[in-house]
Parts: sequence; C-alpha cells; structure tokens
Amino acid sequence: MKLNNQHQKLKENYLFSNIAKKVNEFNKYNSHVKLIKLGIGDVTRPLVPSVIKAMQEAVLHMGDASTFKGYGLEQGYLFLREAIKNYYLIKGAKICEDEIFISDGAKSDIGNILDLFDKNNIVLIPDPVYPAYLDTNIMAGQNVIFLKAAESNEFLPMPDKNIKADIIYLCSPNNPTGAVYTKDQLKIWVDYAIKNAAVILFDSAYEAFIDDKNLPTSIMQIEGAKKCAIEFCSFSKTAGFTGVRCGYTVVPKELKREGQSLNKMWLRRQSTKFNGVSYIVQKGAEAVFSQKGQKQIKENIDYYKQNAKIICDCLNQLDIYHCGGINAPYVWLKCGMDSWEFFDFLLNNAAIIGTPGAGFGEMGEGYFRLSAFSTRDSTIEAMNRLLKILK
Amino acid sequence: MKLNNQHQKLKENYLFSNIAKKVNEFNKYNSHVKLIKLGIGDVTRPLVPSVIKAMQEAVLHMGDASTFKGYGLEQGYLFLREAIKNYYLIKGAKICEDEIFISDGAKSDIGNILDLFDKNNIVLIPDPVYPAYLDTNIMAGQNVIFLKAAESNEFLPMPDKNIKADIIYLCSPNNPTGAVYTKDQLKIWVDYAIKNAAVILFDSAYEAFIDDKNLPTSIMQIEGAKKCAIEFCSFSKTAGFTGVRCGYTVVPKELKREGQSLNKMWLRRQSTKFNGVSYIVQKGAEAVFSQKGQKQIKENIDYYKQNAKIICDCLNQLDIYHCGGINAPYVWLKCGMDSWEFFDFLLNNAAIIGTPGAGFGEMGEGYFRLSAFSTRDSTIEAMNRLLKILK
Repeated sequence: MKLNNQHQKLKENYLFSNIAKKVNEFNKYNSHVKLIKLGIGDVTRPLVPSVIKAMQEAVLHMGDASTFKGYGLEQGYLFLREAIKNYYLIKGAKICEDEIFISDGAKSDIGNILDLFDKNNIVLIPDPVYPAYLDTNIMAGQNVIFLKAAESNEFLPMPDKNIKADIIYLCSPNNPTGAVYTKDQLKIWVDYAIKNAAVILFDSAYEAFIDDKNLPTSIMQIEGAKKCAIEFCSFSKTAGFTGVRCGYTVVPKELKREGQSLNKMWLRRQSTKFNGVSYIVQKGAEAVFSQKGQKQIKENIDYYKQNAKIICDCLNQLDIYHCGGINAPYVWLKCGMDSWEFFDFLLNNAAIIGTPGAGFGEMGEGYFRLSAFSTRDSTIEAMNRLLKILK
Repeated sequence: MKLNNQHQKLKENYLFSNIAKKVNEFNKYNSHVKLIKLGIGDVTRPLVPSVIKAMQEAVLHMGDASTFKGYGLEQGYLFLREAIKNYYLIKGAKICEDEIFISDGAKSDIGNILDLFDKNNIVLIPDPVYPAYLDTNIMAGQNVIFLKAAESNEFLPMPDKNIKADIIYLCSPNNPTGAVYTKDQLKIWVDYAIKNAAVILFDSAYEAFIDDKNLPTSIMQIEGAKKCAIEFCSFSKTAGFTGVRCGYTVVPKELKREGQSLNKMWLRRQSTKFNGVSYIVQKGAEAVFSQKGQKQIKENIDYYKQNAKIICDCLNQLDIYHCGGINAPYVWLKCGMDSWEFFDFLLNNAAIIGTPGAGFGEMGEGYFRLSAFSTRDSTIEAMNRLLKILK
C-alpha cells in the first residue's frame, strides 16, 4: 500500500480557519458590534430572475416522465455549449462546441487538469495568487517556481526567458490583486509558452468584471493561444453561482503536446471520472446568456464594481497604495505592516474582516485584500470606519 | 513538458459508441420498428414529488437575498450529512457526520479517490464490472489484477491468500451481474484487507435494491470495515438522480495507512480540488431521506424490481442461466455465444438493445446484461419478443 506521500508536503490549511478563530474570539467579547465582512470572496446578491425562472422550469421537467432528463453527456448539454460558443464569438474568439467542457466550477477543473500531466514538470505559479494552485501542484508532485508579482511590475509578472516552464498559471483579472493583463502582455506569454512547448492554464473567473474595451476578456482572443492555452471559466462571480456550481473549460483542439491532443485527453478523463453537471444547473447557466440574463447579471456586476470604487475612493483619500478594484471585484492595498497584524488591527478597531496578503503567498506580505462582494451599505459603512481609524 | 503517458495505455472507449453506431444503422433501415432499450443503466421514472418540492423551494431561496446560499462547506451541508448518518444508524452502522462527504455522484469520487494513492499499488478489480474502475487505474499507473467472477463462484469472487493486494474494488450489488455478497463473504474480504493493510473501495450504488434482510446493505455493517474500507454511495439509481448529480462517500476516521488518516487526506483533497455540491441538489437529496421521500422512492425501486422479475421469469421460462435481478436492477444472462453476436441477434430479430458482457471485461464474454430501468410496458413487450425468437 503506497499512499500519495506528496500530501505530507502540504502546509496546514490555516488561512480561513485562522480567520474564523479570530472572528469567533472577537465575537465573544464584542457581540454587540456589527462585523463587516470584506474578506471571503463570496457573492451576496441572489440569483437573477432569468436564472431562477429557468431552474424552476427545469425542476418541474424533472418531475414529469415525459420531460425527465437522466444522464447527460459528461461534456455538457449542447444547448449550453452553443450559448458559450456564441459568447466567445461576441468577444471575437472562435471556438467550437467540442472545445467546451461544462464543469461543476473552475476549482474542480483547475485541480483535475493536472491528471493530464506527469509529475516533475516545471510549473510557474504567480505569487500572490489563489492558494489552490500551489496546493494542487504539491499534491501532484510538480516543481513549482513562483512568478513574483510586486508593485515594481504592477502585480503583472512577465516571463523570464531563462526559465523553461512546462505549465504556467495565469489568473487575470487576478485574485487577490485585481490586476489585469493587457493584450500585448498576454501575447508575450503566449509566445513564451509556444516557444517552450508549455501549457498556459488561464483562470478567467473574473473576466465579466472587465469594462475596459482595450483589455482582453479571454486568452482565446490572443493569436496563438489555441496552440498553448486552456481557459477555465466560472459562473460563480459572473452570475452568483457560488452555491449552484457551474463553470466551463475551453481546451482547444489545436493544443497538442508530445503528439497528443489535450482536448482528447480531457474528454477521456471527464468521461471516465466525471458524470456531467446537473441538468437543472445547466438550464440555469443557459439563462445567464439570454438577453435578459446578460442584462440582469450586469446589474449585479455593476453593483459590486461600484462597491469596489467606493473602496478605492476611500484608499485614495487615505493616500494608500492599492491595485485592482477597477476591472475586478478585489482591491489589493498596501497595509505597510505584517498583514496578519493589519488583519487584527482592522478587526479590533473597525470590526472589519479582510484577508491578509500573506495568505496568498510570500509576496502578499505587507498587503491586504478587500472584497467588493458585500452590500452597498456595509461597504460604505466600512469605509467610513476606515477613514476614522486611519486618518 | 511531461504528459501523463498512462493515457496511451487506455483502450479506445468503444462500448457505448459501438452500440450507438449499430443502433443508428438499425434505425436507418427500420425506422418503423419500436426499439426497446434494456441496455444503458439510466433511470426512466421522474424525480419523486418530495424531491421536486424541496428543490422548488431551494430554487426560490436562491432568488432572495435573505435566503440566498453562496459557498457551502466542500464536505457538504450538515443537514444532509446528518440525514445520511441517520440512514446508516437505521442500517445498524454507526458513522459520524465528519466521516461523510457529499459528492456530485459516485463516479467522480470513485475516480478521484486515487489521488490519495501513489502509483504502482496492486489493485484488485472484479471482472466483469463497471468499466470505469479499470480505466481510472490505468490512468493512475496502478497494477491491476482481475478478480475473476464466473458461474463457478456465482459471480462473487473471494480473496486469493497468495495475492497481497493494496486496493480492492468491490461492487455489491454488482454492476453488471446483480450478484450480492453475503455478510460472511464481506467479513472474509474485510479480514483479508486488514491482514494486508489494504483498502477496500466499496461501490454501494445499488444498495437500495436489496430487500433480503439477511444481505448487507453497506460494508460499514461488517465488523472491522471501518479499519479498511471506503464506501461510495449514489442517489442516481436510489432516487433517480442520474441527471441531478449527488452521492456520498464514507471515509471512516479509523482508516489509517502509513500513519496517515485517509479521512484527513480526503478532506484536504476535496477542500483543494472541489467546491461542494449545489445547494439546490443537496436540498433535493435531503428530501430523499424524509418519511415521504423514502416511501416515494421505494415505489420507484419496487417498480424497477418488478421489471427485473418479469425479465427473470422470462429467462426461467426459456431455461436460460441468469444471475441478479432479485436484489439488483440488472439481470446477467448466459447468451451462449459471442456477446456482440448476441447483441446483433437481439437488435435485428427483436429490436431490443442490451449490453454485451464483453464490454465489462473478459469474463463477461458469453454473457449479456439487461437493465430493469425501462417502462413496465416496454419490459413486458421485450420479454414477449424474446420468448418468440428464443423458444
């Protein structure tokens, strides 16, 4: 019996449980105080009416033998893949229905994609970034090199030609920094990946928050990307599906390594280790792409973006360096001290919960993430409290 | 760049696509003939009213900010894990809520559990059985030894003390044979696994079809199982959730290998590579365990079992050897010829689709699976046709 002993290399997963401990402690002695949560990246606005309507109908269908749906294709229903194909066309990227794989969320696919790779590849992971990339690669026995993001590169690290990478994680708009790569920057990454026969794993979870028409909303808009990139998308933040569970992964047919088609490999992997996404959920996701659906989710996205603007305006007033918050729902600020110290300071003096930058990597030390997903009132109140204690 | 080259060892996945090809060909020239599908193991009865009601309410909750649910625990909501804990208690097995992991279906977890193991373990896989076990182990670079099932052992293979296994797959009631292990037989397997420090991966997908009170409905009813077994359960056949996607995996805290707790490892794996099951789906699953829910799903299960009885009665009339169909929704018959030849014979002479035994492993050759999931009328008509052509 040989266990996967890579697990023992994982650090204890302390970020959110530490936060929970401190919050519980605070609540013990301050139960009268209203805590404002700008920490966890979860949405607060409910599902939009178009989605609710579609899912209600789908539930009723499932209760009637004549409309009941059993197993669907593991790759997802064509009606949803066609809607996504159309969404890409509007963005100026041409992909086929069989290059789209419906997932139960980007987190699953970003984790499971490593099934296609052997151990001991050179993997570039940004620092700071969403912690799951690092953990999944430790579990998979990969060799990680960090792409250091800092103020000096505006938290948008670029390739080092002296490093021959095999797998490259890019997250744009970035979690936690909110930084967004330009088209030119992504082109440089694509060229680098093609040159090194590497694969870019592009996390597009926050693409719907981009308003700036000059910024790319998909790596598939970049020439050459189909030869080197896999894109992971999610309805979580786009449409409030954090508790519904749906996303999609684009694996271009042109993407081949060692003579193998990664599209074929992923299809085989999913056909063997996955049984598709709930019909009800896929009908809800389809409604996101309807005209009404797009209008309704935009209202919610604009609502969160306005929260982000309120946070940024406050930080500007306080003359605090910050990144993000314009084409992203996260604001990354320089707290000028140990980020856990700042967490405590904010909690104890303003009853605000945020996320310490150190939780996202070494380069996150000295920085802090605030999320725009709370309510308008809470966000305004939080900024008022911040002004009071930091002025 | 090193891909997982184990993929190249996979055989082309031809079973259901071959069936589809033959059916399409048949339809071309016989469009007037009513095909009866006793092949694929998909349910036909719709979701029960209790589940529909629960999911309707859950959908509405998701449309209202005050009841909206975002991210849930990756392990699943406590309300559902408590219902499952209670279900086990009624079965005489005591497990804790933190030993239960809600999944999006057994297929995902049975595939992903291999993340906990290193390559090159000795893995026992029954033959014949659900094909995914073999494919997932080829992908994971494991060493497979087949547990041969045949008439001689009533399709219930027992341990070979000369083989030191590390991982053991058992599926009871079995897909495709419908054979069910007794308590004594499972005790022998548990003792063998403990002696060899092996882990039993127990697929319990069809446990709800067992009526015989002497037969075990969970490996957790067997003394010592908590030291060596992981159980995979599914709502797919139990409650018609093939298109809804929900199951649960039981990883006992007592299960330790190499000083590691597999429960802790699985929790870490799921927390890192999974984001939980849809709230709406979990509410539907919870309703399965209500008193009304249990009564309603029993009606459907009994409906399918009566179909199975009709199939068995017909085979008895024809004096054809068969297995299963009593505490399982599959009937495994001896077709006495190449199983694909029998497939063609059945399709062309009776317009019935079944599944050739060879699709489940070498030991399946000469046998054939018929499923009880069709409608009563179709099942009766199919058996009438069978009697005509085989008398």
